[in-house]
Amino acid sequence: FKNGLFVETEDKAFNFKIGGRMQIDGGFSSSADTTSRSNVGFRRAQLWIEGKAYKDWFYRFQYDFTNSGTQGIRDAYLAYRTKLLPESITSQPVTFQVGNFFEPFSMETTSSTSNITFLERAMPTVLAPSRHIGAAVGVGDKLWSVKTGIFSTSPQDTATAPPAGESQYWDVAARGTYAPIQQEDKLLHLGSSFRYHRPNNTTAGTNGAFLRPGAGTEREEADILGASGTWSRVPVAQDLSCAPPSNATTNATTFNTSVTGLAGLYYPFARRSSCLKYAYSYGFEAAATYGPLSLQAEYIATRYERDPLNAFLYSNGGGSSLQFSGYYVQGSYFLTGESKAEVYNGYDKNWSSPGTFGAIKIKNPVNKGGWGAWEIAARFSELNLNNGGLVDGNFVYAATVAGSAAQKALANTATLGGRQENLTIGLNWYPVNGFRLQANWTRVMTLVAASDRPFLNGDHPSIFLARANVFW
Amino acid sequence: FKNGLFVETEDKAFNFKIGGRMQIDGGFSSSADTTSRSNVGFRRAQLWIEGKAYKDWFYRFQYDFTNSGTQGIRDAYLAYRTKLLPESITSQPVTFQVGNFFEPFSMETTSSTSNITFLERAMPTVLAPSRHIGAAVGVGDKLWSVKTGIFSTSPQDTATAPPAGESQYWDVAARGTYAPIQQEDKLLHLGSSFRYHRPNNTTAGTNGAFLRPGAGTEREEADILGASGTWSRVPVAQDLSCAPPSNATTNATTFNTSVTGLAGLYYPFARRSSCLKYAYSYGFEAAATYGPLSLQAEYIATRYERDPLNAFLYSNGGGSSLQFSGYYVQGSYFLTGESKAEVYNGYDKNWSSPGTFGAIKIKNPVNKGGWGAWEIAARFSELNLNNGGLVDGNFVYAATVAGSAAQKALANTATLGGRQENLTIGLNWYPVNGFRLQANWTRVMTLVAASDRPFLNGDHPSIFLARANVFW
Amino acid sequence: FKNGLFVETEDKAFNFKIGGRMQIDGGFSSSADTTSRSNVGFRRAQLWIEGKAYKDWFYRFQYDFTNSGTQGIRDAYLAYRTKLLPESITSQPVTFQVGNFFEPFSMETTSSTSNITFLERAMPTVLAPSRHIGAAVGVGDKLWSVKTGIFSTSPQDTATAPPAGESQYWDVAARGTYAPIQQEDKLLHLGSSFRYHRPNNTTAGTNGAFLRPGAGTEREEADILGASGTWSRVPVAQDLSCAPPSNATTNATTFNTSVTGLAGLYYPFARRSSCLKYAYSYGFEAAATYGPLSLQAEYIATRYERDPLNAFLYSNGGGSSLQFSGYYVQGSYFLTGESKAEVYNGYDKNWSSPGTFGAIKIKNPVNKGGWGAWEIAARFSELNLNNGGLVDGNFVYAATVAGSAAQKALANTATLGGRQENLTIGLNWYPVNGFRLQANWTRVMTLVAASDRPFLNGDHPSIFLARANVFW
Repeated sequence: FKNGLFVETEDKAFNFKIGGRMQIDGGFSSSADTTSRSNVGFRRAQLWIEGKAYKDWFYRFQYDFTNSGTQGIRDAYLAYRTKLLPESITSQPVTFQVGNFFEPFSMETTSSTSNITFLERAMPTVLAPSRHIGAAVGVGDKLWSVKTGIFSTSPQDTATAPPAGESQYWDVAARGTYAPIQQEDKLLHLGSSFRYHRPNNTTAGTNGAFLRPGAGTEREEADILGASGTWSRVPVAQDLSCAPPSNATTNATTFNTSVTGLAGLYYPFARRSSCLKYAYSYGFEAAATYGPLSLQAEYIATRYERDPLNAFLYSNGGGSSLQFSGYYVQGSYFLTGESKAEVYNGYDKNWSSPGTFGAIKIKNPVNKGGWGAWEIAARFSELNLNNGGLVDGNFVYAATVAGSAAQKALANTATLGGRQENLTIGLNWYPVNGFRLQANWTRVMTLVAASDRPFLNGDHPSIFLARANVFW
Repeated sequence: FKNGLFVETEDKAFNFKIGGRMQIDGGFSSSADTTSRSNVGFRRAQLWIEGKAYKDWFYRFQYDFTNSGTQGIRDAYLAYRTKLLPESITSQPVTFQVGNFFEPFSMETTSSTSNITFLERAMPTVLAPSRHIGAAVGVGDKLWSVKTGIFSTSPQDTATAPPAGESQYWDVAARGTYAPIQQEDKLLHLGSSFRYHRPNNTTAGTNGAFLRPGAGTEREEADILGASGTWSRVPVAQDLSCAPPSNATTNATTFNTSVTGLAGLYYPFARRSSCLKYAYSYGFEAAATYGPLSLQAEYIATRYERDPLNAFLYSNGGGSSLQFSGYYVQGSYFLTGESKAEVYNGYDKNWSSPGTFGAIKIKNPVNKGGWGAWEIAARFSELNLNNGGLVDGNFVYAATVAGSAAQKALANTATLGGRQENLTIGLNWYPVNGFRLQANWTRVMTLVAASDRPFLNGDHPSIFLARANVFW
Repeated sequence: FKNGLFVETEDKAFNFKIGGRMQIDGGFSSSADTTSRSNVGFRRAQLWIEGKAYKDWFYRFQYDFTNSGTQGIRDAYLAYRTKLLPESITSQPVTFQVGNFFEPFSMETTSSTSNITFLERAMPTVLAPSRHIGAAVGVGDKLWSVKTGIFSTSPQDTATAPPAGESQYWDVAARGTYAPIQQEDKLLHLGSSFRYHRPNNTTAGTNGAFLRPGAGTEREEADILGASGTWSRVPVAQDLSCAPPSNATTNATTFNTSVTGLAGLYYPFARRSSCLKYAYSYGFEAAATYGPLSLQAEYIATRYERDPLNAFLYSNGGGSSLQFSGYYVQGSYFLTGESKAEVYNGYDKNWSSPGTFGAIKIKNPVNKGGWGAWEIAARFSELNLNNGGLVDGNFVYAATVAGSAAQKALANTATLGGRQENLTIGLNWYPVNGFRLQANWTRVMTLVAASDRPFLNGDHPSIFLARANVFW
């Protein structure tokens, strides 16, 4: 036992750990939109319990107390690991995992927030799936890993329950990683991810998470400055949903509970078919470390295939095929000489999220009279939620708000969710294991606003955030 | 310490345990009503802490993270155990318990969900009380137990707060068990329960839990397939409440907060008296085990005594005395030879819920190269929420929805909450202690619908549910 | 490890503790207002984890499960302690603390609810700040302590988020304590606290916590008897806020989210300036113990400085400077001879809340055949939320409800939040460490009602509350 509690039987067949994490944030921003100029708060306050039973059986339950009820459930799974493959392929057991955990997609997304370089994950990760309930199988070894699974909804996903009498959505996701170079202070990591999404009739019709990806973006750069988002928000795009008119919606949800007369019979006709046929995402990642210097980059894209006939029937804008994408490039340098290469976790060290970085090993921690570890870092990231015919932002704004029918139709040919480029500079101090103080300064270099908020066009807001971080 | 964490001082005067339980469900149904065709989710995600202090003092705090706030509190009590009775009566100490725990009623209800045979408790248990805040006293020995207590509201019971200036409801409950045969592979268990309920003015007037028992039924067979219930729902009965007209209701709840003028004076006249005088429930249970075969059955009934004058004044339907009841019979067989007889918990082993089964002892667990334990099971259960003059369902439906005054009056003589018979078949696999995979298939054999949803009459929906279960 | 779990490495550089607390309440009241006559419930159900890492680094995370989401977070901080001052000043290290914890203000407020003498803190503590997120520094020794820090909002403070584009409020608080006498059975403790509050534009305009202090009072005497307060409620004072008219309010909150047209431009003019310039609180405390007898008293006052021009523009009542205050005096006597003097925690024993009492040491606990510890106690407390020109309560009521313009203007010169004097008598039984049974009877001796509920004038409600308390 070190910072937290870890107990193990002598034969190592059983163990038990209580872990936790607190992230206390404070910061201010130069502007804009719906955010406060300054605020403080808890970004995460998590506890988890994990155990090993009878050598091969594992469980983990993690809860974030900044959420309430089911939405606070994070990792919550059980797993069975057994040696199935010959030694020539891998010396590691195969992993079967059931429960709620990250879909295998993207290095940055599946990394622990205790170990990522900046306060918040890079913008493009809004296109990557979060934790979902499902079943997965993983194989790998020190240098490579493949994990794939089938997933459905998530405890955090409360907005997308399927309508009565219909089925839940499902995903298939996979990620493979390979580290051709892995030495004590040198590392080259390559990886790729894919995810296929089959919506349910709710998500296909109205779910923001799939048809209005910009809606979720607001939370990503910094959650703390305002209840409903940050200044670097890329706002909601045009309505691409096939949401039925409000009257039909009411019928839909109340069909079996209060519409007991003939009115119930109209419902199947009033109900709209779904617009989204399916969506898929793909991503590529690379990381390289040379001594104290490390570089990391990812590209993620999501493609939405829609039913053109339904979109036409409901006068929906946007094309029948939409693509949103983003990328980031980041570098960090340890002034005190630590190297991320030695804490790279292959499948042998982290079978749930292989191919990520663990907590660094501080060379001269404060408790031994040193200065701890100091790291400087920079990241450039871009997220592009525009799609289709390019139209000048202000024109679209006027057209959608006050335009003639012709203008609106023209504006409708494009999907303008906005485009944003951010530069973030960071400084991290690791005094002793388990404690980290972080400061980030982010400036929006380019901001092409979404069609519903043209006043953000050309703005260059900046934000400063500091965090006190403890995990055990 | 085994799967979880358990520590004890050498003299056994103190101990401390961290337990937990995760139940991850997925399934699909053939139909109907307000449910999804398929879904996945967490049925329970609990942690608990329990301790022993100074030999005789106990505490336990259990929380279910699929609820939020106070509603997630499960077992939360402190207890004191002391030797009061002569050895000739019992060798065990008497237990005094204060806090939130199961009212002593019904074997199935007070059994842990980690150990019940099927995914969900049998339908008739909707007539049994759940955990409530109160004080209880228990005595017993290896073969017998008696537990009784006085209880009031529950942290999960948020809908039944008394009106301002009035008192909370209260219950008296008792359960006795006796096991005339208890050998290593043979068991005969008999038991009986009783509960008296005195409503408060809210529950007597409007509370679904007491006058509309069908309202709660929807959750029991399977919580996971839909936010608001399952296909095997027995819907809300006719209005038996004495709920005041909406205007008076408003006055009632706002009397002291916003009605500061003369209007407040009208309130006592506008407020209705309660209809329910009291209610009582009783149950009988039996369980028998012979080697790997075990049988279990219960009958539970609840009787509501109402004030006929008030019911008349407010034109309420139903008689002045209503009775609802249900039963189940279930059998299970361990293909791998385990017996439930050896894990029967008398008062000596489980003083909080005596007379229930614990976790089975797996003969050949997977970690020793065996196949684990395999169990097949079947259950037939019935719940009858009809009462009073028998009227054809479709007629009542027409009468209540579109009928003449005479028809309505006729329909009103009966209380038609519906009647349902279910057959459930289950398969359980216990690979190692603490892990269990379960699959249940349920078919509704008879479905007499409640008066407000005649379209369910004669339907035979089925449901399939699988669960991955871990507890430590 | 005793009641709970506490582990430590041999060199004492690391430790880890799991603590918890359950308070199960039940009681009844003679009247009035919005409360139930009887009820039961959980007052607190908390768990916490605290640890020491590398000797000098500390963390603590505490959660109350009777709240949900972020609001349940209690103590949640990390701290670093290091020897900076010469031995001649103090032998103790200086403490730097970041996170959510009590602002250093008032002995009663910063004491643990497991150790305070009565069920609820005294009335005047509603004028003291609770836990807030901030950074503090503390120094002290066995006999003295000084703690000061800068704070901002709190996880429990969800009503006071600043408007979009504006900054969060902040506080500076400090408390100093000194114990000129500290022997095994004699103690004299003196202390003083100060807090400066700079509101944000929400709290300055509308926040009840700062301009309507009476609004919070209702919870303090007893939370359990009713969802929204107790009979001893001192209700909301007149409207002292500069809350904009409802229309402008709507604009304010929706400016950036839905007012996309020209209407948005009006907003800065419709928005009112803040009325509150700043507020400050101060308090004095004293405690004395002589053998089994102990006395404790505090006086707390809060002063609100307002902008007279804005108050005039928005026709706000009350003066430009308001002062609310309260005090309590309490005594307790251990019939079984224990003394609070020996459990006084100086900075050397409790660096987070120095100058408070810990859990008493029971002389003859029940587990050793004794009777436990028995304590009798009495408290007299007063809270005065009246201010400005004294006006007869019934007159003001008539004036504000039905008066002429002249009457209203006259009534407006005063701020009548009410005044209340309570007498509380208590009996505590400590059978063994960690368990405590408590009973309190409170009678309102004087009740001058707030201007909006004159019917409470001269009422003398009483309340009885009992609690079963366990902590580990």
